[in-house]
Amino acid sequence: MITSTANPRVKAALALRKRRERDRTGHFLIEGRRELSRALAAGVVVEEVLACPALLAEGEADVLGRAEAAGARVVEVAEAVFGRLSYRDHPDGMLGVARAFETGLAAVELSGVGDPLVLVVAELEKPGNLGTMVRSASAAGAAAVIVADPVTDVFNPNVVRSSQGALFGVPVGVGETGAVLAWLRSHGLPVYAAGPGGSLPYWRLSLAGPCALVVGSEHRGLPAEWLDAADERVVIPMPGSGGVDSLNAAAAAAVLLFDAVRQRAAAEG
Amino acid sequence: MITSTANPRVKAALALRKRRERDRTGHFLIEGRRELSRALAAGVVVEEVLACPALLAEGEADVLGRAEAAGARVVEVAEAVFGRLSYRDHPDGMLGVARAFETGLAAVELSGVGDPLVLVVAELEKPGNLGTMVRSASAAGAAAVIVADPVTDVFNPNVVRSSQGALFGVPVGVGETGAVLAWLRSHGLPVYAAGPGGSLPYWRLSLAGPCALVVGSEHRGLPAEWLDAADERVVIPMPGSGGVDSLNAAAAAAVLLFDAVRQRAAAEG
Repeated sequence: MITSTANPRVKAALALRKRRERDRTGHFLIEGRRELSRALAAGVVVEEVLACPALLAEGEADVLGRAEAAGARVVEVAEAVFGRLSYRDHPDGMLGVARAFETGLAAVELSGVGDPLVLVVAELEKPGNLGTMVRSASAAGAAAVIVADPVTDVFNPNVVRSSQGALFGVPVGVGETGAVLAWLRSHGLPVYAAGPGGSLPYWRLSLAGPCALVVGSEHRGLPAEWLDAADERVVIPMPGSGGVDSLNAAAAAAVLLFDAVRQRAAAEG
Repeated sequence: MITSTANPRVKAALALRKRRERDRTGHFLIEGRRELSRALAAGVVVEEVLACPALLAEGEADVLGRAEAAGARVVEVAEAVFGRLSYRDHPDGMLGVARAFETGLAAVELSGVGDPLVLVVAELEKPGNLGTMVRSASAAGAAAVIVADPVTDVFNPNVVRSSQGALFGVPVGVGETGAVLAWLRSHGLPVYAAGPGGSLPYWRLSLAGPCALVVGSEHRGLPAEWLDAADERVVIPMPGSGGVDSLNAAAAAAVLLFDAVRQRAAAEG
């Protein structure tokens, strides 16, 4: 059992909190039973799991067993050491080191998906918001999440955490705006850009067919390039009298995605 | 100009990041031009504003002027000092110290509000989520946000920040679950509790009339007391195949609130 934070494995895992180290090594962190379970189910290559016996709940050994069966090295660490490694509020004693997977646009496959619903996130800054959006998109049955010109990388531990592992259950593609627009066009997806400048309430648009819903950054909203390229500029009407004229980016994405869910359920009768 | 973080005013402001100190002094922090502006417009008593000239954008002096006119003492601080005081990604050079306002349930007034829409948040842990919910509720035109058995206090700087000052534009009441339920009953509000255990999709329920939408904590969802007391248990259907069976609490609240907005717009024709 590892009992010191000076242990090279522990230091290597801590270093992966930094993007530079993730980019350099091609590895990233996956903390938590649910998250590791989803990663393994999706075929993500988990190379190592640092496990803290004192924090593991009963019945969780199966995840470690599956990780080992898939080729991971399971290493036990003391509780004090795990306390340093963990970045969650309720640590459950598992931290994986995994191999970053392909996130190029070319790898995102929509063929075989009927009426694909795609969430596009432009210039997002906060990893927590990106992870929350991926979680919502996966729950809504989106065919893909496309991340245009991100400030954060999708392997940031806070993306993994706030996605609750949904990052491994929905195809994610990353690219520059021009490439993303070309990709959307080549897949025949109408582009619906959301923002306060729009005039059409999103619920007046049919979201039951194939479409791409585009939301912007927390700080600046959607860049002009997206507004200009959009087939429709939609707005989330905000009737409140308190002067609030925008939502948190992840809240806005959830509102749009789940109206698509509602419309699709209605279309199916 | 204050140039040292050892200055008593700076130390007092930094101390207000801690709940104990907020509870002890009855003061809290409001950072940002927009947030201070909304607080002043709502009649929140801002006693002091620490302002950093190097960070103030042009045209923002009006907020400082309004703060002074309302009785605030404006004190200039050096940029290095403001860097310690700020807890935002994009500081704009203003940090206010304000007097905590009344958040008892008795102070929340619904009379005069037609078809009140109320968001109830139960046992929430994360101040960022609470602030995001308040922002969404204010944007949706909710008559109030009721916080039952919170783990966080509503004057946490992260609530103020993530609400973007919406905390000052919508009535907020805090109470224990029993008192909140009694308050909802006394106002004749049907209680719709959201969670994975529900069977009725929220969109099948009329949200155009008076109603209370209840969402639970990030970690455990809604406590049994809420589920038992609810007039309806609603679900947000999640058709995704990735196994994601819950949304971020603030995302769930936004989905419900904005379906009420949609239904109300439809009811008005």
